[in-house]
Amino acid sequence: MSSSFKRLLLGKPIPTESENRDQLRKHTALAVFSSDALSSVAYATEAILAVLIIAGTFTLGLSLPISLAITALLVIVGISYRQTIHAYPGGGGAYIVARENLGVVPGLVAAGALLVDYVLTVAVSISAGVAAITSLAGALGYPGLREYGVGLALIFIATITLLNLRGIRDKGLLFALPTYIFVLSILGMIAYALIRYFIVGAPDLPPPASIEPPVNAELISAWLILRAFAAGCTALTGIEAISDNVQDFKPPAARNAATTLTVMIVLLVTMFLGITYLANLYGVTPNSVTNETVLSQLARGVFGIGPIYVLLQVATALILVLAANTGYADFPRLAFFLARDRFLPRQLANRGERLVFSNGILVLGIAAAVLVVLFQANPIALLPLYTLGVFTSFTLSQLGMVRRNLRTQTNGSERAALISGIGALLSGVVLVMLALTKFIHGAWIVIIVIPILVLGFQVIARHYTRVAEQLSLTTAVRPQPIRRLTAVVLVSGVHKGMLPALELGRALAPDNVTAVYVNLEPDQGMRIRSRWEEWGCDVPLVVLDSPYRSLVTPVLKYVQEIEGRYRDDQVMVILPEFIPSRWWEHLLHNQTGLLLRAALMFRAGKTVISVPYKLER
Amino acid sequence: MSSSFKRLLLGKPIPTESENRDQLRKHTALAVFSSDALSSVAYATEAILAVLIIAGTFTLGLSLPISLAITALLVIVGISYRQTIHAYPGGGGAYIVARENLGVVPGLVAAGALLVDYVLTVAVSISAGVAAITSLAGALGYPGLREYGVGLALIFIATITLLNLRGIRDKGLLFALPTYIFVLSILGMIAYALIRYFIVGAPDLPPPASIEPPVNAELISAWLILRAFAAGCTALTGIEAISDNVQDFKPPAARNAATTLTVMIVLLVTMFLGITYLANLYGVTPNSVTNETVLSQLARGVFGIGPIYVLLQVATALILVLAANTGYADFPRLAFFLARDRFLPRQLANRGERLVFSNGILVLGIAAAVLVVLFQANPIALLPLYTLGVFTSFTLSQLGMVRRNLRTQTNGSERAALISGIGALLSGVVLVMLALTKFIHGAWIVIIVIPILVLGFQVIARHYTRVAEQLSLTTAVRPQPIRRLTAVVLVSGVHKGMLPALELGRALAPDNVTAVYVNLEPDQGMRIRSRWEEWGCDVPLVVLDSPYRSLVTPVLKYVQEIEGRYRDDQVMVILPEFIPSRWWEHLLHNQTGLLLRAALMFRAGKTVISVPYKLER
Repeated sequence: MSSSFKRLLLGKPIPTESENRDQLRKHTALAVFSSDALSSVAYATEAILAVLIIAGTFTLGLSLPISLAITALLVIVGISYRQTIHAYPGGGGAYIVARENLGVVPGLVAAGALLVDYVLTVAVSISAGVAAITSLAGALGYPGLREYGVGLALIFIATITLLNLRGIRDKGLLFALPTYIFVLSILGMIAYALIRYFIVGAPDLPPPASIEPPVNAELISAWLILRAFAAGCTALTGIEAISDNVQDFKPPAARNAATTLTVMIVLLVTMFLGITYLANLYGVTPNSVTNETVLSQLARGVFGIGPIYVLLQVATALILVLAANTGYADFPRLAFFLARDRFLPRQLANRGERLVFSNGILVLGIAAAVLVVLFQANPIALLPLYTLGVFTSFTLSQLGMVRRNLRTQTNGSERAALISGIGALLSGVVLVMLALTKFIHGAWIVIIVIPILVLGFQVIARHYTRVAEQLSLTTAVRPQPIRRLTAVVLVSGVHKGMLPALELGRALAPDNVTAVYVNLEPDQGMRIRSRWEEWGCDVPLVVLDSPYRSLVTPVLKYVQEIEGRYRDDQVMVILPEFIPSRWWEHLLHNQTGLLLRAALMFRAGKTVISVPYKLER
Repeated sequence: MSSSFKRLLLGKPIPTESENRDQLRKHTALAVFSSDALSSVAYATEAILAVLIIAGTFTLGLSLPISLAITALLVIVGISYRQTIHAYPGGGGAYIVARENLGVVPGLVAAGALLVDYVLTVAVSISAGVAAITSLAGALGYPGLREYGVGLALIFIATITLLNLRGIRDKGLLFALPTYIFVLSILGMIAYALIRYFIVGAPDLPPPASIEPPVNAELISAWLILRAFAAGCTALTGIEAISDNVQDFKPPAARNAATTLTVMIVLLVTMFLGITYLANLYGVTPNSVTNETVLSQLARGVFGIGPIYVLLQVATALILVLAANTGYADFPRLAFFLARDRFLPRQLANRGERLVFSNGILVLGIAAAVLVVLFQANPIALLPLYTLGVFTSFTLSQLGMVRRNLRTQTNGSERAALISGIGALLSGVVLVMLALTKFIHGAWIVIIVIPILVLGFQVIARHYTRVAEQLSLTTAVRPQPIRRLTAVVLVSGVHKGMLPALELGRALAPDNVTAVYVNLEPDQGMRIRSRWEEWGCDVPLVVLDSPYRSLVTPVLKYVQEIEGRYRDDQVMVILPEFIPSRWWEHLLHNQTGLLLRAALMFRAGKTVISVPYKLER
């Protein structure tokens, strides 16, 4: 029954041979790989405003110059990633680039940062998607939906996890549509609002917040501007996705990927600056009472509550869900690379029935769900954790490109090194700034987690190396053949369930088999012994006393004693085990059997034989 | 290391032979068995007032007549329990009395009600104890402690659970002192307040709430009075404890127990009525803002904030903790009775290293902790769940006494049946009233849980009966001796770890052993085969293809195939297993081994041999 339920959820198993990679055309690839980057405009402007508003509305005008600075950073990092695309046409993720050019530890740091980052991609995008939906519901007169934000986010995560466990086969239209609708409606909104502004004049809304220069709070303002800049850097998240997946483009892959990256950056910059400008024009500020998103307020202001507003909100929610979905492609794949290189448990390298890395998908889903619950599905609260991992991987990836270009010494490699160097320098400076300004707002969690992950990778790798050394046959001595077998059958009473175990014991070690009963209640021993005479299959019975009512201790002691008898024998402990006919009945049986088996195997290193006895009903 | 940590927490194991039961003198027994009953005065009055206040302060005066009615009920049930004491000098818990006189199902209903009740005893008493402490802290100027109520309650539960797992040996002074201090300070407070009232006059506090008859809300008031009465019935919780434990009294046990019960009821009635009267006199009402308890407000009003007030609060907290502790004696013992009679898993009948029913203690601790978290350690919110189980067991226990007395037909048995009958009738009426008035306030949970428990008891009992039938040797045919053995060794590669398993396979079935390798990656098969030539110990290797990357399916199929070869052989599957040297390394190994073993044993009913290979570092 549980198996057919699994079939229903996941579908039929897929054979290994049906694996193939579709190669994507540019316009599909843009939709597939840029949903993460483009969707960040849904919250980047709000993140800046949420910091500035702390000092009062008069500072909100600063959001425009801050956004321009972020745009400059975005363009430089983007140009640097175009180089990565040409250098790694097989896919140049930060782990691969950093490990190959900078060494193992920088590679692992990049990997740890990326794993954290992918979890946050899911948590942030889903939370922001839920915020878009609850904002829409609020505007349509259902403000109560906000109460269920966490529940909604968890349902989304569960659904995406399940879909990815099934394996999403058709990546074409499904992925392209919401991305294009989102881009078109945002660009349309910006164009419409600007045209209306220049024809009709200022909107009939509260006037834009006037910019008054802060008088005697210069120092605080400098810090505030830094924080707002750091907050807005979330606009850069996801721009590395195309360079990670060059191999998925139709040939000429590198050229197509580079063109796609350029288009994406132009779209991203236009939407980000446009939304920030409009937010200033319409005097929109983050609303901590209704929690309506800035984008929702803006769309309402421009279009009023109507079908276009609803379409924009739905498209926003959908692209954010798609953005979360990119985490489900990236996390399991990076985990596979790490497991293949023995830095993570090998279970993460196995593909499940549906030809996907099921374990990685599950780990990601659970981690994201935990974050969503801890941060109550509030995207703005999650953002301080987000960008740190992204910029760590940016910095390391571009540093790797500098090193690579300096080594190769080909035509134009110096110029390339210079561009990557500027990108690395800027990313590194922003990284330090992010760590400082966001530290107390949650970044400390990431700063603690990444080194722990790197340490964990190394501990796991060392373990696997040691095991491989110990298992190596080059140092092996061929073991002596086993000449004599001794069997101990543990019996829990005189009943049918122990008969198969006793028969096996007699067959394996006809001259060296004993049955052992542990006497937990003082008066049981005699009763068992007398019943044994009749039914014991001629196997001698040993009754062990257990003054402390432990089952394990007397058995371990007895087995050690038995072992001392001969020098050349192999002792085997035979455990009869009931196999109940219904799953819940397992709770009523075999708990002591499990304990005994664990103690005999793990503590005493004994060979254990489990003989099942099937209960019919 | 984990073992020495366990030693530190629990102490050394205690041998079975050192079991003994102390017989208690009356004054010690009073303290030990009546802490649950006496401590209920700490919240019973408040429970009544909390209902009445809903209709406004003018109804608060009704608390006095309501308390008198509850007292009458208390006395009648008390007299009925005196008879139970004489009839069951070996201890007459409701499960035993109901099962013996009314049948199995009523016995199980009583048992289910009692199990629920004991969990609630712990949850309510601990929550009320924490309320006493936070009220004290609030009065002393630390209102912030209230925020940590749930945390405090969980720490208390963990501590009591741990102490009971160790086994509390010395029951004398430790238990007597807080109970007597509590009784003396409450009686002292009542006496002092009354004397001061008659000498000095009314206290200089807000005047008592004047009783204005409700004008046109008669129906609502009748319902309200019923609800307030039902709420106050918590004063009766715990009065059955003495009759459950008659065997622990010094001889003549029955007479001593009956005397102790009488003393307890007199004390209980005096304190309950006294507190209710004083609450009216001082115009004390439940405070939903500070959450200060009524008893704390009263003590502050009478004594002012000083050493006597602090002593009273501390004594209240202590007796409530003791009351919770009675749950830790009752729950595991009832669970033992039920497990012995096969209505609960047999693990609950085992005594742990310290000669206590460790599993029952753990189940109780976890259940109480869950309740405390769900109800935020609010005793008044928990109370609607509490009394229902108590009155179910009262009713069934006294009905059982009626039946017993009618059967015995001795001198005075008719009179005894009449008394028990009145008690049963009243308890039954109150039970229905409780179910009705408290239904929407949480009682529905108990009304659902008790039948589920009863059903569970019966399902478990049926399972154990069926197993016993299937295991019975009276229908057994002596099995054929095993003549031929076939061994299949599952190997995960060519390495040292599989050598012991292969050697064992050769020794067990020299002519019938094969090694099996499951080919998950298409290109591995050839590599393994060529390495096998060199190291395979002459055992033939079979490489199984697995197009769906499943390890289990091809192995199960192969084993079934092997089985068809001979009619008279026993197939054994040999699994080599790594034993890591550190606990966390288990996470990196043997997960597939566990899956394979489960599938082979539980799904295919095969004998599985686990051969350990110890990793040194």
